[in-house]
Amino acid sequence: MNVLHRPDRRRFLFAAGTAAGGAATLGTGVVQAAEKAPAGAQWFDVPTDPTKEQGRAVGADGGYGSRSQFETTVRVRYPTPNENTSWSLTPLAALVGNITPSGLHFERHHGGIPTIDPSRHALVVHGMVGTAKRFGMEDLKRLPSVTRNHFIECSGNSLTEWKKPTLKNVQGTHGLLSTSEWTGVLFSTLAREVGLQDGAAWVLAEGADAAVMTRSIPMEKMLKDAMIAYGQNGEAIRPEQGYPVRLLLPGYEGNTHIKWLRRLEVSDKPFMTREETSKYTDLMGDGRARLFTLDMDAKSVITFPSGEMRLPGPGVYNVTGFAWSGRGRVQSVDVSVNGGKAWYPARLDSVPEPMCTIRFTFPWAWDGQPAILQSRCTDETGYIQPTRTELIAIRGDHGPSASVYHLNAIQSWAVASDGGVSNVHA
Amino acid sequence: MNVLHRPDRRRFLFAAGTAAGGAATLGTGVVQAAEKAPAGAQWFDVPTDPTKEQGRAVGADGGYGSRSQFETTVRVRYPTPNENTSWSLTPLAALVGNITPSGLHFERHHGGIPTIDPSRHALVVHGMVGTAKRFGMEDLKRLPSVTRNHFIECSGNSLTEWKKPTLKNVQGTHGLLSTSEWTGVLFSTLAREVGLQDGAAWVLAEGADAAVMTRSIPMEKMLKDAMIAYGQNGEAIRPEQGYPVRLLLPGYEGNTHIKWLRRLEVSDKPFMTREETSKYTDLMGDGRARLFTLDMDAKSVITFPSGEMRLPGPGVYNVTGFAWSGRGRVQSVDVSVNGGKAWYPARLDSVPEPMCTIRFTFPWAWDGQPAILQSRCTDETGYIQPTRTELIAIRGDHGPSASVYHLNAIQSWAVASDGGVSNVHA
Repeated sequence: MNVLHRPDRRRFLFAAGTAAGGAATLGTGVVQAAEKAPAGAQWFDVPTDPTKEQGRAVGADGGYGSRSQFETTVRVRYPTPNENTSWSLTPLAALVGNITPSGLHFERHHGGIPTIDPSRHALVVHGMVGTAKRFGMEDLKRLPSVTRNHFIECSGNSLTEWKKPTLKNVQGTHGLLSTSEWTGVLFSTLAREVGLQDGAAWVLAEGADAAVMTRSIPMEKMLKDAMIAYGQNGEAIRPEQGYPVRLLLPGYEGNTHIKWLRRLEVSDKPFMTREETSKYTDLMGDGRARLFTLDMDAKSVITFPSGEMRLPGPGVYNVTGFAWSGRGRVQSVDVSVNGGKAWYPARLDSVPEPMCTIRFTFPWAWDGQPAILQSRCTDETGYIQPTRTELIAIRGDHGPSASVYHLNAIQSWAVASDGGVSNVHA
Repeated sequence: MNVLHRPDRRRFLFAAGTAAGGAATLGTGVVQAAEKAPAGAQWFDVPTDPTKEQGRAVGADGGYGSRSQFETTVRVRYPTPNENTSWSLTPLAALVGNITPSGLHFERHHGGIPTIDPSRHALVVHGMVGTAKRFGMEDLKRLPSVTRNHFIECSGNSLTEWKKPTLKNVQGTHGLLSTSEWTGVLFSTLAREVGLQDGAAWVLAEGADAAVMTRSIPMEKMLKDAMIAYGQNGEAIRPEQGYPVRLLLPGYEGNTHIKWLRRLEVSDKPFMTREETSKYTDLMGDGRARLFTLDMDAKSVITFPSGEMRLPGPGVYNVTGFAWSGRGRVQSVDVSVNGGKAWYPARLDSVPEPMCTIRFTFPWAWDGQPAILQSRCTDETGYIQPTRTELIAIRGDHGPSASVYHLNAIQSWAVASDGGVSNVHA
């Protein structure tokens, strides 16, 4: 690698691997290049004309490539006191296409990221089964597999926006959403291996993390499309996503996709664990709380333009964003540029897949006047993404608290006459 | 991160980012974990029971995650004398699903990997156009984009196998093939921006690498589906794949997908560059050479079981692999376990997409006797992947040389009675 210092060159940081440095905050969402070399990084020069010198050699990266040192966008940790029991958000505005790069998939951990040796890890399936069995990773990989694209969304995504707009950009408001190509074994395949007893109606999934995260899942869902996933975007699932194996429940709230999966216990009733009684429930207007609100309803968000961006001036812009539904395929997406007074159909960039995000685009000729941009998703069940007002009329008006999950209201971005974009309630 | 040394723990190398160490050769294809810490790596302990200690904190990875330290498979450089003008192969047998992880996408460079500052890079479109224009990266990203899954295959993939089986595993025989979700601007969109003169029939694409790689592409193809790609698997295209922008020609031989694209010159005839006259041509039996053999024909390969693997014993195995065609969608894949005497339809794991790989699977009950495994792809044009004998009857029998490109013959893997799998011609 060239390390000469010529006046006609500029010096740049070569950040090896994941060493994408730089301070990042939810407040700005903008990440600056690192000012000092992170671990594994080195300085080198960028030629003015790259054709005038030999390029980097094949294999200099150890055989596993990394992104360009000019790409420094990172996921940002939500400012919680405990950095183990915390989450980080995906920079949605920086993504292109539909898949979330594995290195930028959002995180939500209850006891940090465990380090698991796959050769010593196993999944035990027991309880109301014919024969309890232990599946090592090699056993799982020898069974028939499926590969499907699905999103995972934390039920707390957008939670902070219930009462008033608090976060400045889309990474903050919607960054607990990511999409991957998942590969694994269907639970229905494992069920045939162990057999199910009469009356088997629920399954407890347990993780091997420090929180020993547990959730009860209806057998109907487990047999329909639950996947024991060991692959993500063509390779082994990432440590933050449950390496070596996680539960994948297409369309269900993120916390039920138990990571570092080690146990599935079949039962005739739910186990009423801490996470499904005191935690992941929805307090309603009459004071009662909804339990097992597992499906993520239809939702969408515009990622360009979005909070903290600034349009250079009047002209034609390609408004774009993501739409998704936990209940099936996205059927259509509408866009409004006047706060919902008028809606126009957006273009869907690909063929809708079940319980998967889809990118939409909408050409907008901005005249330079203040505008309110919104997107609205309709899924194949006919459900239409509600306004915040419509949602509160049903769910009640609770302040920002742990009980306000499943906020799938329409997001509004205000574009000021100076081109500045900000998060508003409209 | 825990650094205690308890007797009940095992020590493992935490390889940060892409620092997946270990010696790898095409001969074995098997990669051992690094024996000493690569740059940016550190030692730590793996707990016997991960639930008994706090996991790694969110953000400890700098906000961009990396794969598990237990995952050490890498792409392997083909042993060429020059490590800049060289290529590396994708470990197909280690992949799951359909997408190739960006870090494992095969490489073929003619002058190494240039380092390009996207803020100073531009694509110039000129020649027989209405108005020549310069597109900076921001200009390109403001135009309407498309996202599509496509494979790229080097026309030299499997080339070494023309006369006799020389490479031991599928990474060697078929590793110059990878698939990504690509995002970019269609050339047809740029054509509307610059306008085309009457008689415009070819386009020269030029790269900004040290080789100033150039190829002439028919205008018909450019207007049909040529993409100016800046996105790969959800993020910026990787440096080895042409950062910040490359040409993507769905189904065409890999060398035409000009990386680090800086110039498109419209003309009424091909430019007859070095790469399309002395290099990427196919010598025929009568001594003449075919020029511009751009489409990659239908092909397939079994990745499990494949060369250098060993089946533990008789039993049911899920035979799996990839099939693809540069002329459209894969229509069907057949599998034979007796060297082509009988063929059975394999299951396609997803919905076929145009000019994209698809994974197929086939349940095989191995009786412990010697067997010859083969796969055969049929694409939507009705073309059937040929045997090597059928191909040689048309193309002539040339020794392994630079003139024997486009070898898409059926691959045979021999399974011995001891379970050992090897590369054979059958």
